[in-house]
Amino acid sequence: MERKRIAIVGVGLIGGSLAIQLHEKKISSKLIGVDVNPVHAKKAVELELVDEVVSLDEAINQSDIIFLAIPVDIVVELLPAILNKIKDQIVIDLGSTKLQSINAIKTHPKRGRFVATHPMWGTEYSGPEAAVKGAFENKAVIICNPEESDADALEWVKAMYKKIGMHLLEMEAKAHDLHAAYVSHISHITSFALANTVLEKEKEQQAIFELASAGFESTVRLAKSNPAMWVPIFMQNKENVLDVLKEHISQLTRFKESIEKNDNEYLLRLIEEANKIRKILK
Amino acid sequence: MERKRIAIVGVGLIGGSLAIQLHEKKISSKLIGVDVNPVHAKKAVELELVDEVVSLDEAINQSDIIFLAIPVDIVVELLPAILNKIKDQIVIDLGSTKLQSINAIKTHPKRGRFVATHPMWGTEYSGPEAAVKGAFENKAVIICNPEESDADALEWVKAMYKKIGMHLLEMEAKAHDLHAAYVSHISHITSFALANTVLEKEKEQQAIFELASAGFESTVRLAKSNPAMWVPIFMQNKENVLDVLKEHISQLTRFKESIEKNDNEYLLRLIEEANKIRKILK
Repeated sequence: MERKRIAIVGVGLIGGSLAIQLHEKKISSKLIGVDVNPVHAKKAVELELVDEVVSLDEAINQSDIIFLAIPVDIVVELLPAILNKIKDQIVIDLGSTKLQSINAIKTHPKRGRFVATHPMWGTEYSGPEAAVKGAFENKAVIICNPEESDADALEWVKAMYKKIGMHLLEMEAKAHDLHAAYVSHISHITSFALANTVLEKEKEQQAIFELASAGFESTVRLAKSNPAMWVPIFMQNKENVLDVLKEHISQLTRFKESIEKNDNEYLLRLIEEANKIRKILK
Repeated sequence: MERKRIAIVGVGLIGGSLAIQLHEKKISSKLIGVDVNPVHAKKAVELELVDEVVSLDEAINQSDIIFLAIPVDIVVELLPAILNKIKDQIVIDLGSTKLQSINAIKTHPKRGRFVATHPMWGTEYSGPEAAVKGAFENKAVIICNPEESDADALEWVKAMYKKIGMHLLEMEAKAHDLHAAYVSHISHITSFALANTVLEKEKEQQAIFELASAGFESTVRLAKSNPAMWVPIFMQNKENVLDVLKEHISQLTRFKESIEKNDNEYLLRLIEEANKIRKILK
């Protein structure tokens, strides 16, 4: 794989972790960062995630490849403008929702230079200091609407994701957003709501601190996630998220009713049903 | 610490892991298992978690210390009968609810021989094969209503828990059950309900298998937990569990409403509020 000059717009958790992998796997000849947050920009250079931080326009001019690792509302906003400015660079986004960004440039003359991807990796932390080595390895990456990308762009993106250790899946954007609501977005909502529940009910914070077990930490850890990332995800994927959230509230209501009615049999059945997740989880 | 003959009633995840620690820390001279499930009984001996498995009556006769690592409904059922049969042995339970078991033997002449404890450790797995080495280490253990136990019994139990690496907290049973609902029981309900939600909505199980990220796994892993353990916990702690569950449904409803109304501001505030869990989680 010939080394490329690569720009990463958004050098936070995802962009920063990607930068480390691109450097480690010798995919980049130069790593150029772009970040609207001057503290993050400075930090990304200090941590040597990128070689330098420049403006978006400069980054577009200086690079062969442009990654967008920014909140999904900003992807929708910036993507048409970036496609207006590129020559034949490849533009790749890594957002958690895909339909709106793809629709935003559906008929753009440079549509083919864009590849929509969603690497299924993240943590509850954010910013360049949250970037970690070895991220993405052995995880899935979804490439959406591959038929709308130019063959050379698609080929490079696939080779790059393979080289950083990911396995590829292809999916239409609409299907992606539906599945993402089920296996990722709803987990974040339950975790945020669980944190708010406990913060509301448990006035003795010392008790949480002392008693919280690994189980609690595991269900609530996503509640630390960055609102700037997650508000636009939920809003862009509104229909699917609401659909699964309503089902979740209805499932919780079943637990409530079984306990209210002292219906041990029903509660047992609900839990046995939940146990079936064992068959599916890796 | 003088070595003791120790009986463990219920040689599953908790009892088995405790057996390993008692043996490792040279607290036991002999480990006697009791289990109603003959497959678990056989397995516990095969895995050398205990030296032998005998009947409950034999175990009471042969031991200085009796641990109850069984579902909390069985604790309430067996505890009075066990106290009827002991001479001066110490009886310790490790259940996740405390009020009902303590109330069941409140006026029993042997009340002092009983110490009610809740080590804040567990996993989503069950049975003797789920037992792990090094469990309980650096975790909290709550001793409930210590003033109702005999001084010698309390002293031994405290020394034992310290020796297996736990730090001690004392709490009244009622307060314990309240806090446990907030920092443990609700997490299990949300996880069970989340599993049922995803199993209900996501008919393409292959998609869950391929796409599920670490975030999903972490929020849903408790859904693998054993129903025989959890049904009686939720039922015994009905009032507190319902209280926190109602709050949780109401918190989820806020997320639903903010998304339905496209109220980005409100959704942002809800997530920022949830982020405060960062201050409390270790």
